[in-house]
Amino acid sequence: MADVTTTSLNATHDASVRSWVDSANADDTDFPIQNLPYGILERDGRRGGAVAIGDQVLDIGAALDAGWFEGAARRAAEAASAPTLNAFMALPPADTHALRAALFDRLRADGTSGDPARADAAKVLVPAAGATLHLPCRIEGYTDFLTSIHHTERHGKLKGLKDPLPPAFKYLPVAYHGRTSSIRVSGPDVVRPHGQWKAADGSVQFGAIEAMDFELELGLFVGQGNAQASPIPIDQVADYLFGFCLLNDWSAKSIQWWEQVLGPFLGKNFHSSVSPWVVTAEALAPFRTAACARPEGDPAPLPHLASEADQRQGAFDIQLEAWLSSDTMRSSGDGPARISQTNAKTLYWTFGQMVAHHTSNGCNLLPGDLIGSGTVSGEARSSMACMTEMTSAGAEAITLPNGETRKWLMDGDEIVLRGKAEKAGFRTIGFGECRGRIAPAR
Amino acid sequence: MADVTTTSLNATHDASVRSWVDSANADDTDFPIQNLPYGILERDGRRGGAVAIGDQVLDIGAALDAGWFEGAARRAAEAASAPTLNAFMALPPADTHALRAALFDRLRADGTSGDPARADAAKVLVPAAGATLHLPCRIEGYTDFLTSIHHTERHGKLKGLKDPLPPAFKYLPVAYHGRTSSIRVSGPDVVRPHGQWKAADGSVQFGAIEAMDFELELGLFVGQGNAQASPIPIDQVADYLFGFCLLNDWSAKSIQWWEQVLGPFLGKNFHSSVSPWVVTAEALAPFRTAACARPEGDPAPLPHLASEADQRQGAFDIQLEAWLSSDTMRSSGDGPARISQTNAKTLYWTFGQMVAHHTSNGCNLLPGDLIGSGTVSGEARSSMACMTEMTSAGAEAITLPNGETRKWLMDGDEIVLRGKAEKAGFRTIGFGECRGRIAPAR
Repeated sequence: MADVTTTSLNATHDASVRSWVDSANADDTDFPIQNLPYGILERDGRRGGAVAIGDQVLDIGAALDAGWFEGAARRAAEAASAPTLNAFMALPPADTHALRAALFDRLRADGTSGDPARADAAKVLVPAAGATLHLPCRIEGYTDFLTSIHHTERHGKLKGLKDPLPPAFKYLPVAYHGRTSSIRVSGPDVVRPHGQWKAADGSVQFGAIEAMDFELELGLFVGQGNAQASPIPIDQVADYLFGFCLLNDWSAKSIQWWEQVLGPFLGKNFHSSVSPWVVTAEALAPFRTAACARPEGDPAPLPHLASEADQRQGAFDIQLEAWLSSDTMRSSGDGPARISQTNAKTLYWTFGQMVAHHTSNGCNLLPGDLIGSGTVSGEARSSMACMTEMTSAGAEAITLPNGETRKWLMDGDEIVLRGKAEKAGFRTIGFGECRGRIAPAR
Repeated sequence: MADVTTTSLNATHDASVRSWVDSANADDTDFPIQNLPYGILERDGRRGGAVAIGDQVLDIGAALDAGWFEGAARRAAEAASAPTLNAFMALPPADTHALRAALFDRLRADGTSGDPARADAAKVLVPAAGATLHLPCRIEGYTDFLTSIHHTERHGKLKGLKDPLPPAFKYLPVAYHGRTSSIRVSGPDVVRPHGQWKAADGSVQFGAIEAMDFELELGLFVGQGNAQASPIPIDQVADYLFGFCLLNDWSAKSIQWWEQVLGPFLGKNFHSSVSPWVVTAEALAPFRTAACARPEGDPAPLPHLASEADQRQGAFDIQLEAWLSSDTMRSSGDGPARISQTNAKTLYWTFGQMVAHHTSNGCNLLPGDLIGSGTVSGEARSSMACMTEMTSAGAEAITLPNGETRKWLMDGDEIVLRGKAEKAGFRTIGFGECRGRIAPAR
């Protein structure tokens, strides 16, 4: 790829480095010093960029004030200390990499520059427990793709289609535009929507919908944008991928099945949830892997989607999980049940192909655009990443560990998405969580 | 409706009032003193709110400095003099109405307050010819509806569907989310996009697309927004409609036919054009008219879309036109050819129903959201509002007055959209124009 620093390994991936923030050295932390994901912290009523480290949150503005950064890292930290990360995301990768390198250096336990930084701990760190986090950026545009062949095929079969896969699926990454205004950071309740649907007796009804679903997705935040009418060539896409989050594309299937003429609309625009921490593409460089192998006989990608480098390392080996807890489970002290376990590397199209395709007609992406992978369902039943697949669209209930059954999400059900990238020789990079509970219709 | 001032007539609709800006009194102006549409003017490198009056543009910030406004009008003018109109659009209708009343008062020729204002003409007015105008606001979200039954039926027939109208069409206003980043104000060239399509021989190709179309739409700018999970009841929608513009939803049909699984995507997100002036809902109050009569046997709207007031006066009698000029026509001095003449009152659903439906699931609208009507095709051939209908998707060419033929738009073709509302006893309210020319693929 054009900029090797975007995809290649450097000192910040060194698994042997430990942090003076002790909790970052725990085996089970999502946020070791090798991660350093970005988010927005509210502190004393002011919002600003922050970094997760162990069980602490580092206030970038406070670290800036403490004199932690110089040169390119300082300029990047100034952008990253704003109330949204958009200006930071817009920087060239060399600048964002400079800040990561400086943070790594200041937070390491064995470095000369880490030692004096430790004295600033009280000024720059806030415990993650109880910290108020906001959306990482102003989400400029939201595009949701449909890149899991397993999810798409199962949906097609549920609809009774003779060919369950749309003809275009293997030629281009299918996508639609979503709604940005209703995207919320992990946490607040998801109010069950009202909507219109067609009942079994053929009548059309309006009311609180029954078929409430979650969809487990991986979200990409775009970094640098492109000018209108100037597509991003696939071999340069790596420089445009800022980082990734967990995305729950809550879906009102009752609405979606009936309304869908020009794609999803009210079935999906009442509330979408993202995790607060953006795990950078740089932190995930060790977990790049070969794109999903195309079955024999599938068409080769057309030239604007074809790249040897992208095929070799365009996918990300990220394990993704969904956990469900009901009111009953929580009140009886039962832990949540893992209902889905899947991996982003199984997607038929890479994020590189998604971005190249999105801009291939001249559409301009902006720093802070959110791009969803679509539901990341794998081939195995355990990797189905939404209720629609698990229950064959409500035909067969699933049974939870405590004996409760579900055809769809019920009021009080909480879904927590988690993600992590693991590889021998590297620290595990976690995504934190993306949480939301269904509140009754109003 | 809840707020009678939003839909009822007042002194600013009085056709007998003339302005001291002489050009505003011409019979053929789009911008008499009864119109007062808002836009964003760039003056001396600074952007700020402005109003079209005759062949002049009024700089609201300059008028504010000149002491034109007091009380609510002054507060509204302060919001309207910002670099985008979003904060102004977000105000309650009573405040935006106060500014309109004050502008009307200051610009009238026969009023006591108009006379001193005239002395400020050199400070506050800029000739429209040569003025640089920008998008009226930061477009927060863009939703495009499909509300012309004639457009929808013709498309269904072209696709060979047995029932050309989707089952949901008569039960709800169908819509999809569009892309905001590529919306431009009237003026710049529209670069012919590259894209993927399926050729007649079954092969899938990528290149500069042939089937380039325009779509003549009416755009609504949302004023006040609503909170998430708090739908706007249809009887209160009038207070949320800030104003209207012309919208050209440029379409790459070659792409759209092939890619469309979850609705339009690259076929429509390379460039959309809006006219620079937002004609307020208040200016259009005299032109409200009964919603399109539903044919006998059509289902009645469900309760969340049903309103006696909306049925009685929820449509807008706005004539819309598209004009085409080719390179050859312009170089030989021929004027443009009118290729479409239609009316927004023929739409099957009202903007009130669109907004009520959009928020019925709790989706939150924001001040500055753009909502498109969809292609405003009527029943008559002359009212077809896109090339796809006129040429039966490229099967039969249309002939221009100079003998040139077109199956689709060719490089150099310029489309100009125009709109006006006319009614006996009222001044004609014009929309200015929405212009764009097809530039060769890059």
